[in-house]
Amino acid sequence: MDAILGHPFPILNHGFIRVVDYMGGDDAVVQAARVSYGAGTKSVRDDRSLIRYLLRHWHTTPFEMAELKIHVKLPIFVARQWIRHRTASVNEYSARYSVLDREYYLPDTDTVSAQSTSNAQGRGETMSADDAEWVRGILAEGAESAYGGYIHMLNEGDAADPRRPGVARELARAGLPVSFYTQWYWKANLQNLMHFLQLRADPHAQWEIRQYANTLLDVLARWAPHTHEAFMDYRLSRFELSRGAIEVVRQWLLGAEPDRDTHGLSAREWKELNEVLRPASRD
Amino acid sequence: MDAILGHPFPILNHGFIRVVDYMGGDDAVVQAARVSYGAGTKSVRDDRSLIRYLLRHWHTTPFEMAELKIHVKLPIFVARQWIRHRTASVNEYSARYSVLDREYYLPDTDTVSAQSTSNAQGRGETMSADDAEWVRGILAEGAESAYGGYIHMLNEGDAADPRRPGVARELARAGLPVSFYTQWYWKANLQNLMHFLQLRADPHAQWEIRQYANTLLDVLARWAPHTHEAFMDYRLSRFELSRGAIEVVRQWLLGAEPDRDTHGLSAREWKELNEVLRPASRD
Amino acid sequence: MDAILGHPFPILNHGFIRVVDYMGGDDAVVQAARVSYGAGTKSVRDDRSLIRYLLRHWHTTPFEMAELKIHVKLPIFVARQWIRHRTASVNEYSARYSVLDREYYLPDTDTVSAQSTSNAQGRGETMSADDAEWVRGILAEGAESAYGGYIHMLNEGDAADPRRPGVARELARAGLPVSFYTQWYWKANLQNLMHFLQLRADPHAQWEIRQYANTLLDVLARWAPHTHEAFMDYRLSRFELSRGAIEVVRQWLLGAEPDRDTHGLSAREWKELNEVLRPASRD
Amino acid sequence: MDAILGHPFPILNHGFIRVVDYMGGDDAVVQAARVSYGAGTKSVRDDRSLIRYLLRHWHTTPFEMAELKIHVKLPIFVARQWIRHRTASVNEYSARYSVLDREYYLPDTDTVSAQSTSNAQGRGETMSADDAEWVRGILAEGAESAYGGYIHMLNEGDAADPRRPGVARELARAGLPVSFYTQWYWKANLQNLMHFLQLRADPHAQWEIRQYANTLLDVLARWAPHTHEAFMDYRLSRFELSRGAIEVVRQWLLGAEPDRDTHGLSAREWKELNEVLRPASRD
Repeated sequence: MDAILGHPFPILNHGFIRVVDYMGGDDAVVQAARVSYGAGTKSVRDDRSLIRYLLRHWHTTPFEMAELKIHVKLPIFVARQWIRHRTASVNEYSARYSVLDREYYLPDTDTVSAQSTSNAQGRGETMSADDAEWVRGILAEGAESAYGGYIHMLNEGDAADPRRPGVARELARAGLPVSFYTQWYWKANLQNLMHFLQLRADPHAQWEIRQYANTLLDVLARWAPHTHEAFMDYRLSRFELSRGAIEVVRQWLLGAEPDRDTHGLSAREWKELNEVLRPASRD
Repeated sequence: MDAILGHPFPILNHGFIRVVDYMGGDDAVVQAARVSYGAGTKSVRDDRSLIRYLLRHWHTTPFEMAELKIHVKLPIFVARQWIRHRTASVNEYSARYSVLDREYYLPDTDTVSAQSTSNAQGRGETMSADDAEWVRGILAEGAESAYGGYIHMLNEGDAADPRRPGVARELARAGLPVSFYTQWYWKANLQNLMHFLQLRADPHAQWEIRQYANTLLDVLARWAPHTHEAFMDYRLSRFELSRGAIEVVRQWLLGAEPDRDTHGLSAREWKELNEVLRPASRD
Repeated sequence: MDAILGHPFPILNHGFIRVVDYMGGDDAVVQAARVSYGAGTKSVRDDRSLIRYLLRHWHTTPFEMAELKIHVKLPIFVARQWIRHRTASVNEYSARYSVLDREYYLPDTDTVSAQSTSNAQGRGETMSADDAEWVRGILAEGAESAYGGYIHMLNEGDAADPRRPGVARELARAGLPVSFYTQWYWKANLQNLMHFLQLRADPHAQWEIRQYANTLLDVLARWAPHTHEAFMDYRLSRFELSRGAIEVVRQWLLGAEPDRDTHGLSAREWKELNEVLRPASRD
Repeated sequence: MDAILGHPFPILNHGFIRVVDYMGGDDAVVQAARVSYGAGTKSVRDDRSLIRYLLRHWHTTPFEMAELKIHVKLPIFVARQWIRHRTASVNEYSARYSVLDREYYLPDTDTVSAQSTSNAQGRGETMSADDAEWVRGILAEGAESAYGGYIHMLNEGDAADPRRPGVARELARAGLPVSFYTQWYWKANLQNLMHFLQLRADPHAQWEIRQYANTLLDVLARWAPHTHEAFMDYRLSRFELSRGAIEVVRQWLLGAEPDRDTHGLSAREWKELNEVLRPASRD
């Protein structure tokens, strides 16, 4: 972990994540869990097993004992999704104090997708190269034009007129698109980091924030390898069976073909259950 | 309070605050405080005095027992400041699910100010009417142009081409400025509402979010009048004396003219102390 | 719900839960969710389906929009477990201000159990009636004796000596056992209430706090019936399959008998998986 | 700070605080504040001044960027006050898993005080040595007797009878007084630590928890000396002037003797204002 301290991992066209500091790791989780158990832990469980046990049984407090601080550069629309995770500490670059750089997110051609027709919240088919270029053109032109107006209103840059005041920065920035980059220091404990990853490394999260989540998964693997492994097994790749789904699987295992309605599963839950547990049946 | 339920109070050019629901008020504060005191409250204190006492002594938990839910429409850059208050619940309109309206913030001419020269974070002199119009023009043109591109990329509106797919909404919105309006349901308890107001009704807060805070102050006056009164006296209009400032005031009251450095006051603290307690001395 | 407002539901020998106030219910959840979706919700989903969808997909923020306030009387050792749920508001009776009543928890004979031999944290076999009475006797005698000393130190009651000062209440209470009852107002939103219930209505929670959780489950069924139903199906009775367990179940469904170790399941996870999905196989 | 890592500072008769780990300090506060200001910080302010400025203006987020983890041994009644600070992480020794030691709080003779007659929540005069010994006797005898019953119920110790089961630990502990010691790992950021200290190093806090707060003040002085100094000046020793009190002081400074009622000060606020700012006038 010390090897990557301060090293920026590039994300999207201008963003990055950089580990600034950390406290504890797998060891801190184990240490805290053993305080709770006291002398009552008869079986000497090894660290990896203990961490897997804690995670599987949702014993979350020991994971609060390790802490991570990162420096992130990210588009404003990603920052708006990220900040919804409330149990973290944040210090963000202020566009009231300082002038923003000419840096905005522009999707690569192969990530420009059409609106999904089946999922109101998501992307569908990747667009043709021509259409993607056309989208990129509109976004780039809009961002450049907005930034030009921004600098003009601030009366900064080469064309600044010393006889004219610049407008307040807090007002001028109102014209900048949410594709522009901001940056912040973000600090969270391991438990809240995992909660963030569970939601933001999920396929339903927007592709752009998932790139940040994926980098943080790599950081987690270095920082707390046992926790990372257990997280992948028991959180990120887990599948939940509802009361009804448990009954359906029981019957399947007895060779029966139970009825969806009888067990109160919605069409969507039924579809997912089959896709996950009987993938071959899709053929 | 019931008279204003559901009624939108207009703020800025397109925004509003609308009270959706509430639980308790001054009565809930008093009720909770009396649980803590139990039979030990010998003096039967009236509600107003009790609330003033609690607020003055930072007994905050009884104020958590009343709850307010509002519907707010606000520019994205205001939403970004607002969301920093973490101890609240929020459900925001999603630009991944739905198309945003052609509504953006445009400051009135008399609120367009130059950057402050003394305060890195704030506005200075109001600009001339001509300059203000010029700023408004840049902002309006940029917003209109960005919205045009947005609708074009989505392939919506009159010019939509049925043979072409629209780009994903979550991508298209990246080109919209932070002046565009979003909306959300926001729920907080009375204690956290006061904390919000203390920071956002403050002259150092950006003028735009202060308009929302001011409306919420009016709501507070209706909802919990004793708490509102005490809040104005003990929070919003209070002045804090540091250890050094206490000594300075003591000496002033004895007729002495103590030295700033001796008591460890910074130039700025010294200036504020004089402005607040010896306003006449400024002449 | 209004029918039970203020009505105390008795729990244990002296405790109760009493609903003091509430804001919203199923309707508030649905209302908030629809703000997020905006016009993008094409399918007009009925309330029950929407709530089930939200809960199944861990969309938790709409559930924060409903609020419950209760008055609880509970033994101190239960209060110590309860207070670990941090996202709630609490005003507790203060033993610094007021004198505690002579009320302590005494388990019924049939709930006095021996220490579990298989589970370090839990009860095993119910004890014989004689042994249970013997335990009750020790607890009752200790509590009575402690309370006698408490009143004596306070110099209250019939034997109070007007010439002697009573010791400070905050000191005298140090001698009272954690079986004594305290009381508080507790306010939480529906999301945090469900989190509480998930942990405290669980068979691993101590039997005494489970009695409170069970009463709150009844309150939830009245307050927000759709949420209650979905909570039972998707939270309280759910079963989680880890990455390895998914593979095991897939193979079972294909008629194979996979190896536990190959898929990285611990002995305990393997045992639980069989118990839940192949209950017949236990015979 | 590294010099005291792991070193237990004794508190009360059996308690202690031990620093287990920390992340950052004054440097982390300054680093985070400078991210927010960005290039806008024209004046190169030194670290001490910046920290004093942040604290005086309640810019709290940079102080969240440093973290402290301690191991604490404390009586249950102190733990019950401590745990009310919700924005911290805790792992506590579990009396469900493990047997508690024969360790309970017994106040020193000179800290045994009578109930205050003026303050419902607090101690008054120190009691006579004889009375104090009498109180200590009652507390000690009760604790010893309770512990004897505890061990007896658990069927542990020398007199354990192998033919009889011990009662469940979670039940047996119900008879132990709140004077018994528990222990936990506690982790909080610098901002929340200061909030804890503001409430618990205050003269209105119970004497016993203040001993823990005082030790933490010493730790803070080593860990983040600039923050400690600013905290003493701007938080712990500050005095707040309400809107009315500001007007009173202004008039005093002009040589007038304003009327208490005219400015809406309660008798108690008036008394405190005089005591703090005109201490000589008490004579």
